[in-house]
Amino acid sequence: MTEDRLADQLAFLGEIDALKSVVRQSPLVDRSRRENSAEHSWHLAMFALVLADGEAVDTAKVIKLLLVHDIVEIDAGDAPIHGSHDPEDIDAREKAAADRLFGLLPNDQAAELLSLWQEFEAAETPEAEFAKALDRLQPLLLNTLTGGGTWNDHQVSEPQVHARYGPTIERGSAALWRYARERVRAHFADRRNRG
Amino acid sequence: MTEDRLADQLAFLGEIDALKSVVRQSPLVDRSRRENSAEHSWHLAMFALVLADGEAVDTAKVIKLLLVHDIVEIDAGDAPIHGSHDPEDIDAREKAAADRLFGLLPNDQAAELLSLWQEFEAAETPEAEFAKALDRLQPLLLNTLTGGGTWNDHQVSEPQVHARYGPTIERGSAALWRYARERVRAHFADRRNRG
Repeated sequence: MTEDRLADQLAFLGEIDALKSVVRQSPLVDRSRRENSAEHSWHLAMFALVLADGEAVDTAKVIKLLLVHDIVEIDAGDAPIHGSHDPEDIDAREKAAADRLFGLLPNDQAAELLSLWQEFEAAETPEAEFAKALDRLQPLLLNTLTGGGTWNDHQVSEPQVHARYGPTIERGSAALWRYARERVRAHFADRRNRG
Repeated sequence: MTEDRLADQLAFLGEIDALKSVVRQSPLVDRSRRENSAEHSWHLAMFALVLADGEAVDTAKVIKLLLVHDIVEIDAGDAPIHGSHDPEDIDAREKAAADRLFGLLPNDQAAELLSLWQEFEAAETPEAEFAKALDRLQPLLLNTLTGGGTWNDHQVSEPQVHARYGPTIERGSAALWRYARERVRAHFADRRNRG
């Protein structure tokens, strides 16, 4: 390990500290504030460690995809699921962010992390499909644990939850979606009962 | 995957959301606030992904150790490096926390995560020694990037930094400590020059 290599690696690790200041829409379970993208990434990696159990995926690969998947938000910002935005514009901003941020690393590692991010985005491998499913399941869990969370903020209906979360979760894991759909059903039934 | 198993797994994943509210001493690089243990764990996992390069360790194992290593703080709190506390008392509180928190999982996974946490704590495998080194290197990096950070708060001298960070970092990676020691030297030299 040369000193130049270490200097570049630590410059990158210092720069990505900024992911701790990218605020997402989802509330913490205790509703004290909204979640940031760095702690969200940790939470997702824990989802992978626990839920990859019994799925035909390489757990370590899923964890790496999730650790890296939001780093581009440091430059490009978070694009909330319940909001309108121009996908082409976001795409261009995220690609520029990936080039700048991963480009701080030594070339071989820049290529490796860029490739992890591209694999996640493309969602074509079993690991990326599963990682994407967890990235939808985690905010769904936070919403059901906080009496509605972002669904209340944006007046999202049960069919809209099915449409926005279902396909991605089910593609990654049919078992997870069966379970999540039941949680969603119970949440909206409870809300109707409380009127 | 049975529904009971999934229910236990998601109860655990909901419970550990509380790690996002355990505040550490280290500042963010932009000095806007102190870091929490969940985002710290993500940052450390990224340190492992980037710095395991060239070290004789299983990177995926180091990442798992780091994802899990602070979860006990949800019940036991963070024990700052520059502070006085009773190690036996902390030990007992952390063991009870590990039993309660990992115990939320199905038995096989409770044993697996408990074993990861115990391996990290024991610091006897190459992966645990390297993970411990990163857990010391990361706050050192944050301090040098913020003009002193916790070293200023607690009036920590250069020899004290060597004593509190050096042995753990060097045991995990001689190359990392050579590099870190030079950063520490430059930081304190700069401070002396500014008087």
